[in-house]
Amino acid sequence: MNEYEVIKKFFYPLSSKKLSLNLDDDAGLLPSKNQIVVATDSIVEGDHFQKNEENPSLIAKKLIRANLSDMSSMGAIPFGYTLNLSIPKKLKKKKKVNWIKSFTKGLKQDQIKYKIKLLGGDTVVTNGSLILSITLFGYKKKGVVRRSKAKINDDIYVTGNIGDSGIGYKILLKKLSLNSTLNSFYIKQHKLPNPPVEFGKKLIFFANSATDISDGLLADLNNIILSSKCGAKIYIKNIPFSKQTKKLIILKKINISYLLTCGEDYQLIFTAKKKDRKKINYFAKRNLIKVVKIGNIIKKKKLIVLDKDNKEIIFNNLGFQHF
Amino acid sequence: MNEYEVIKKFFYPLSSKKLSLNLDDDAGLLPSKNQIVVATDSIVEGDHFQKNEENPSLIAKKLIRANLSDMSSMGAIPFGYTLNLSIPKKLKKKKKVNWIKSFTKGLKQDQIKYKIKLLGGDTVVTNGSLILSITLFGYKKKGVVRRSKAKINDDIYVTGNIGDSGIGYKILLKKLSLNSTLNSFYIKQHKLPNPPVEFGKKLIFFANSATDISDGLLADLNNIILSSKCGAKIYIKNIPFSKQTKKLIILKKINISYLLTCGEDYQLIFTAKKKDRKKINYFAKRNLIKVVKIGNIIKKKKLIVLDKDNKEIIFNNLGFQHF
Repeated sequence: MNEYEVIKKFFYPLSSKKLSLNLDDDAGLLPSKNQIVVATDSIVEGDHFQKNEENPSLIAKKLIRANLSDMSSMGAIPFGYTLNLSIPKKLKKKKKVNWIKSFTKGLKQDQIKYKIKLLGGDTVVTNGSLILSITLFGYKKKGVVRRSKAKINDDIYVTGNIGDSGIGYKILLKKLSLNSTLNSFYIKQHKLPNPPVEFGKKLIFFANSATDISDGLLADLNNIILSSKCGAKIYIKNIPFSKQTKKLIILKKINISYLLTCGEDYQLIFTAKKKDRKKINYFAKRNLIKVVKIGNIIKKKKLIVLDKDNKEIIFNNLGFQHF
Repeated sequence: MNEYEVIKKFFYPLSSKKLSLNLDDDAGLLPSKNQIVVATDSIVEGDHFQKNEENPSLIAKKLIRANLSDMSSMGAIPFGYTLNLSIPKKLKKKKKVNWIKSFTKGLKQDQIKYKIKLLGGDTVVTNGSLILSITLFGYKKKGVVRRSKAKINDDIYVTGNIGDSGIGYKILLKKLSLNSTLNSFYIKQHKLPNPPVEFGKKLIFFANSATDISDGLLADLNNIILSSKCGAKIYIKNIPFSKQTKKLIILKKINISYLLTCGEDYQLIFTAKKKDRKKINYFAKRNLIKVVKIGNIIKKKKLIVLDKDNKEIIFNNLGFQHF
């Protein structure tokens, strides 16, 4: 199978025929009716997904979902993406085609789930670690939600549960082992994040500021307060953990500072005025997701984390460091 | 230097403040006045650029230029890009900052040369080969030039010279060695391609079809005729080679089939009606580039290459195979 055949067989069915120009050109088009929001994200083998992952459809889904998470935090409506795919050079021809088949199957399932289409892309092969990127496009509604617009006294909210993905990562690295049910629960949280995309589309109706939790809850909240030139006070007792994780904390199998800094939760952290509490609960219920208030924006330019006795906890490290 | 400082110091000066939202958010915006053309391309360490390249500004320029080449072949006007950067994990902190400093210097120089701005991006570190991607955005003028619209009897044109980049690649791989002047001439052609971006913006006024020469002249021409459901007849004697390469051919240091299939020329191949010859020459002169006619589009669905005695040459391989 040559490149032309691979594109026709596996990628053409994923494409927006009109915008991708049938994937038959050096570039594609974007629709011109609305202003467009663009986000891009890369994932790396060994960091964001397992080395020699046997199920490439999971890589595809993680790639799409990590990007949707960025787009969600802006309150935009995703509609399409371009793909920069790298595939392992070492695979023999037939295995390479099977790899692409599984990968594109994952893309297809998530395209349907999230209502997006492929607009174009580029493929390379590599001897080294795979690095895959997506550039995702969304329509802007009346505005976008910025990271820098948190207001003093805003409530701070988090969606979903924090830390499950990070525990899964520890298990994959064999730095933690639980029973097989728990192992698979956490590994699934790591491999297949579930960003609250539909809820994200509603952010524009109530959020003053937002970002997604990819580097770790503390690091991402810190980005909000740095950009917004304010501070935050949050309470450990309010941070949403899954019931499985609550047990691990009690059993001292995992420590809270890891959960707040491990990242890759792909949940949202946002701030909103007190008067919007009802609206937020309404949208949370309608989208069947957990949204909890974890603290407040304060004037003092500092990130304050309080334990169950309201004592401040000091962190040496707020989260994932890129450099 | 943490991520926040690196972005502020090295990337913020490259950005469109308005569209990138000061690089302070999870996504950026695209302008809404024209329809937008989008192209994306990835380059891999060891293939598109040298392993452990000591001058990262060259990597930046190759990345930008490979993408501009795609955009040019559509006849669009590039204005901005998002960047997916991977940097070597193995570099110590200070060297990493120097790497980024040199890389962003290269970006800056090419941003000025080609009138484009940074709109957003994502950075990862990797232990393996670097893979870098750009997604480039351009305005569509009255239309775009498609690969699939070649017409029977069209003239086939090529810009610039063919094969110099491929010779440079052979030299870097130590599969060929010439004198030091020639070595540096060819290596420069490989490391620093020079796509005819300004001329590309004019394609819309005369080209029926176009693509850029990245996989090899024959492979890319073959893409045009496959998409356009026609054939092509080209003459070796008309293919543009640099004077240095002409000498190497005579001395039998390099063979022509390599030159036509090695790829990474980042020149344009396009087809146009006979009546547009004057117009094409006018734009070629105005943009100070070489544009030569190498053959014609024919009805028979075949790529025919004729030698100096008008005998057909058979190629086993048309160019770079992605899979």
